[in-house]
Amino acid sequence: MSNINIRALAKELGLSVGTVSKALRDSHEISAGTKQKVQDLARKLNYIPNPYASSLRRRKSKTIAVVLPEIANSFFSLAIDGIEAVAVEKGYHVLIYLTHESLLKEEAILQDFQSGRVDGVLISLSGQTTGTGHIRDLYAKDMPIVFFDRVCEDVETTKVITDDFESAYKATQYLIGKNCKRVGFLGMSPGLSITIKRMEGYKKALSDHQYAFNSSDIILCPEDPEKSYTTIRNALERKDRFDGIIASIERLSITTYLVCRELQLSIPGDVKIVGFSNLSSAAILNPSLTTITQPAFEMGKAAASALFKALKRESAMPANECIIIPSTLMVRDSTG
Amino acid sequence: MSNINIRALAKELGLSVGTVSKALRDSHEISAGTKQKVQDLARKLNYIPNPYASSLRRRKSKTIAVVLPEIANSFFSLAIDGIEAVAVEKGYHVLIYLTHESLLKEEAILQDFQSGRVDGVLISLSGQTTGTGHIRDLYAKDMPIVFFDRVCEDVETTKVITDDFESAYKATQYLIGKNCKRVGFLGMSPGLSITIKRMEGYKKALSDHQYAFNSSDIILCPEDPEKSYTTIRNALERKDRFDGIIASIERLSITTYLVCRELQLSIPGDVKIVGFSNLSSAAILNPSLTTITQPAFEMGKAAASALFKALKRESAMPANECIIIPSTLMVRDSTG
Repeated sequence: MSNINIRALAKELGLSVGTVSKALRDSHEISAGTKQKVQDLARKLNYIPNPYASSLRRRKSKTIAVVLPEIANSFFSLAIDGIEAVAVEKGYHVLIYLTHESLLKEEAILQDFQSGRVDGVLISLSGQTTGTGHIRDLYAKDMPIVFFDRVCEDVETTKVITDDFESAYKATQYLIGKNCKRVGFLGMSPGLSITIKRMEGYKKALSDHQYAFNSSDIILCPEDPEKSYTTIRNALERKDRFDGIIASIERLSITTYLVCRELQLSIPGDVKIVGFSNLSSAAILNPSLTTITQPAFEMGKAAASALFKALKRESAMPANECIIIPSTLMVRDSTG
Repeated sequence: MSNINIRALAKELGLSVGTVSKALRDSHEISAGTKQKVQDLARKLNYIPNPYASSLRRRKSKTIAVVLPEIANSFFSLAIDGIEAVAVEKGYHVLIYLTHESLLKEEAILQDFQSGRVDGVLISLSGQTTGTGHIRDLYAKDMPIVFFDRVCEDVETTKVITDDFESAYKATQYLIGKNCKRVGFLGMSPGLSITIKRMEGYKKALSDHQYAFNSSDIILCPEDPEKSYTTIRNALERKDRFDGIIASIERLSITTYLVCRELQLSIPGDVKIVGFSNLSSAAILNPSLTTITQPAFEMGKAAASALFKALKRESAMPANECIIIPSTLMVRDSTG
């Protein structure tokens, strides 16, 4: 058996893994010249694409993996429910792996998948993940991977996301409409796709409404809950403190409530809050929390469906597309 | 290779699996006569206990499984954190499997483990699990299993629990002390160890305080959230409705708040509530929720430690013991 893989072919030819994979499958998306080059080298290096063997290998475990940063978060637990709803129907087991926001852990988990433990992978990236080598390594071994929520733009596969830019824009605009003079953005993990898009939506809304933007209006909180409490507390003790807050991570809404209580700031009187959250308790918080509610269940379902479509097509990888399912602004009392 | 296993030996001899396992390991806990009988039959049927092979098999995957009913529950997400804290230190992967409270699913998952996918199992039973055949089957194949929270009393292994009886007693007594005239108990899954103990603690507190107990004071909610909303709504629309409630499952507290809001019942004015819950938002609910706070993280840690102790000891199974870590009553505004 040859141990040359698609990745080695791609590297040798200076092409992307996706292009090589498509060329080997004789896809109409690839030019005849490129196909020729790829197929020649594959023959020369003794690479034999074998859809039957690979499909057999894949179907052996009847198991898919879900790789997540954390589960103490209602978005992820709902997304898992969506994933399982699809997997059960297909007779598959779902294994959940937690990275706890660590790139090292994510790398170790993906490495482990190379042994054929699972047939396919659904992943939402850790907060530390910027490079994509570990993902490309696995993908190059013909492991179908589908991203959801926290995605990696440049791997040619299916990505299921929500409209992060538009949601943050909408939330910011809503606070401006409620007469907030200074709107702050609380976030974490500035390298993540979702953080970047939410920050951009927030900034765009400020500028569209002729609000000045200062870099100190974006508060990046550390992982550690106690430290992030202190960070938010410091921000709300500033003289020129925010009177409107976008909490772009679920648990930062709760932290902000606790800080306001300690500082005796009234919500929504002194500070208005919109949280990105799927908390089932949002409606019974004191005051009830205005949320950007993400379609977590539907996103999980869509990601799993894309993965099973690829598994069914035997050797094919998931389509290179971006599925966007919009979020909803649910107005409650925390914005007055 | 013989395919006779400990379970077959135990059945043949009319002994428990644990006794046979110990007899084969020449444990001092087993009488000389019984050891002789077990070892004779093992020889006759060609059963060869092989600690090295079994330890090798176990250590192969460097992976442990956590089998849970659900994760949209802060108890379980904290317990997982505790488990992972131990596993990371030992260089093990943790796989999470969800049963969604289904016995069938639990059986399929445990069946899957027989292939040697994992080295050991931590399990909290599904709400439907009463029989233990599927657990004994796996245990008889020398798979170390440790229970936490929702345990199976009669499998001879380590069980990590909290003081469910005492906590429910304490919660009920507290409501009685707050002048509640009729205290109701909301639960689910009446076959589970934790439900039974919590109901017993509740009933004992009633009787110790000369309160009459009617079977209609225990409301067993169905799995389905909407149906369970209706069940609680019906209970709170009764003329002789409760003025005190023990919500023995986290999400039933949230449902009760929502029902009270719809029926315009004031908490704590009309109804006082104590919830078994680890919700991080308990303190910022409207009103803040008095809880029985379980040592979820510590329970996960203790369960994982017991499992790794067994894995380290090579062929040995986890000790047959019950580790009890007490819960705490945290008084907040929902009880006045």
